[in-house]
Amino acid sequence: MRILTGIQPSGQLHIGNYFGAIKPAVDLQARGDCTYFIADYHSMTSLTDAAQRRQNSLDVALDWLACGLDPQKSVLFRQSDVPEVCELMWMIGTLTPMGLLERAHSYKDKTAKGISPNFGLFAYPVLMAADILLYDSNLVPVGRDQKQHVEMTRDIAIKFNHTYGETFVVPESEIRDETAVVPGLDGQKMSKSYDNTLPIFGEEKAMRKKIMGILMDSRTPAEPKPDAEKNIAIQLLKLVATPEVAADYENRLRAGGLGYGDLKKALFENYWNFFAPYRARRAELAANLDHVHAILQDGAGRARATASQVLGRARKASGLC
Amino acid sequence: MRILTGIQPSGQLHIGNYFGAIKPAVDLQARGDCTYFIADYHSMTSLTDAAQRRQNSLDVALDWLACGLDPQKSVLFRQSDVPEVCELMWMIGTLTPMGLLERAHSYKDKTAKGISPNFGLFAYPVLMAADILLYDSNLVPVGRDQKQHVEMTRDIAIKFNHTYGETFVVPESEIRDETAVVPGLDGQKMSKSYDNTLPIFGEEKAMRKKIMGILMDSRTPAEPKPDAEKNIAIQLLKLVATPEVAADYENRLRAGGLGYGDLKKALFENYWNFFAPYRARRAELAANLDHVHAILQDGAGRARATASQVLGRARKASGLC
Repeated sequence: MRILTGIQPSGQLHIGNYFGAIKPAVDLQARGDCTYFIADYHSMTSLTDAAQRRQNSLDVALDWLACGLDPQKSVLFRQSDVPEVCELMWMIGTLTPMGLLERAHSYKDKTAKGISPNFGLFAYPVLMAADILLYDSNLVPVGRDQKQHVEMTRDIAIKFNHTYGETFVVPESEIRDETAVVPGLDGQKMSKSYDNTLPIFGEEKAMRKKIMGILMDSRTPAEPKPDAEKNIAIQLLKLVATPEVAADYENRLRAGGLGYGDLKKALFENYWNFFAPYRARRAELAANLDHVHAILQDGAGRARATASQVLGRARKASGLC
Repeated sequence: MRILTGIQPSGQLHIGNYFGAIKPAVDLQARGDCTYFIADYHSMTSLTDAAQRRQNSLDVALDWLACGLDPQKSVLFRQSDVPEVCELMWMIGTLTPMGLLERAHSYKDKTAKGISPNFGLFAYPVLMAADILLYDSNLVPVGRDQKQHVEMTRDIAIKFNHTYGETFVVPESEIRDETAVVPGLDGQKMSKSYDNTLPIFGEEKAMRKKIMGILMDSRTPAEPKPDAEKNIAIQLLKLVATPEVAADYENRLRAGGLGYGDLKKALFENYWNFFAPYRARRAELAANLDHVHAILQDGAGRARATASQVLGRARKASGLC
């Protein structure tokens, strides 16, 4: 089974990204042949800083490799290293009804937020369809907000196959379970736009300060806290500590006698230890960028081998060669 | 000066195409470095017959080479042999405001005619802009209906240069003089949609029949015809005969004494002779298709050499590499 995951190169990752998207995506490697691409073409619809795009693309490769993406087993590449996807986008776009795109939530949402609409934003689902079809993907695990795009991809693939003969694998979507919504340091959902995140790869001192700065209520340490499971630090601790350790802290907080300062210290230690191996691996990769570039080049080569076969089928079927 | 001409691969050519588009475009070879591409990507927005597309692309190469396109001097290639254009389309599309495309006449006209709108039709001006910018074109001679698209290309190029630094040559349009509107065999403008055309490369017998079948009025041969210049056969004769011969027939028709049958016979002879060298060259090419494919491959290689330079600039400027 071929499984495709697109990665937005959008700056510093936080633990909400990790538990919500990276871990589930990396865990897919146990289920099939995984392909991951860094969506730098897509980033052009909203980012016009070239140096930033270059940096983000590299950072995201470091982040994912550090978090368990295995380049021996899986394929990781930068989208723009396989430009065939743009050709496929044109080809399938000539069979994509305008109405389908006009109904896309992503476009309607973004323009409603006041983002000045460019053609790339409108065309984005067609490029995404090409991303999926170019690699004969069987399965595309996505968040709920992306389900519609996979359905559009299916529609486009079916229409192309019907018009020009069997060419594309029709993919299935799989909605990522959103049970692991990670609370931010202020109790809202963790999100860059709320400025309440805990980065995966932050500096030790700054991260300690962030965690120690989590606002708690004014109850004394001795008071029992029957609502202990609602405490943000407890919720975060459950993600980064063993179940036993987390349960122990939760019980002590509930019973009374555990101070918030001690709890936050424990959270920091467990958070710091949890990501220690990832941090070490990331530092190692960052010290050897040639190796990272080689991984991306190798990934692009392997992706391209599949892409050129699929594109060849599409070109032949539609009379371009 | 680099001059770019796009060619629609849309079936059998008629003399209206020749005098209105092919001859002016071929004559450009005296003015600069000409590049001609056969727009097979564009054809996908309206044609879904793969075999027909393949045939049309080849036919149009034969036609233009027969009509004087010199592959030694100029570059002729099939658009889809340089797929870089699709990548550039995506890149510039991310800076193209939706409003610009929504105002495009071509899209509004086609949807008004009831053509079911697909994304390709909407995106067509962006691909055309990429066609132009990819070859550092200075000049794009177009019909009046295409002027808006060249202006859009200028807007997009300027915006890209402004956003990412100097990257593209900003092209100029040049409106093709439409003084040579060729009348059809029924007196309306010659056009495939009126079914009133005289093909350039038709069969002798069928062409003779077409010309001899031009409807005339019921005046007798002996009658003077003071409106001789309005006669369709005279108008067509002026295109394919020497000025002296055409003037002689016009004078005799005006004075009286020239029968319509003799006039049409003269028209046929002159039409047939005018295109004789082109017909011979086309037959020669058609008998040696390997040579034609080699010309197209050579053209694609030369086009690609320019394209990869321009695309390289654009990729670097926008942070894709």
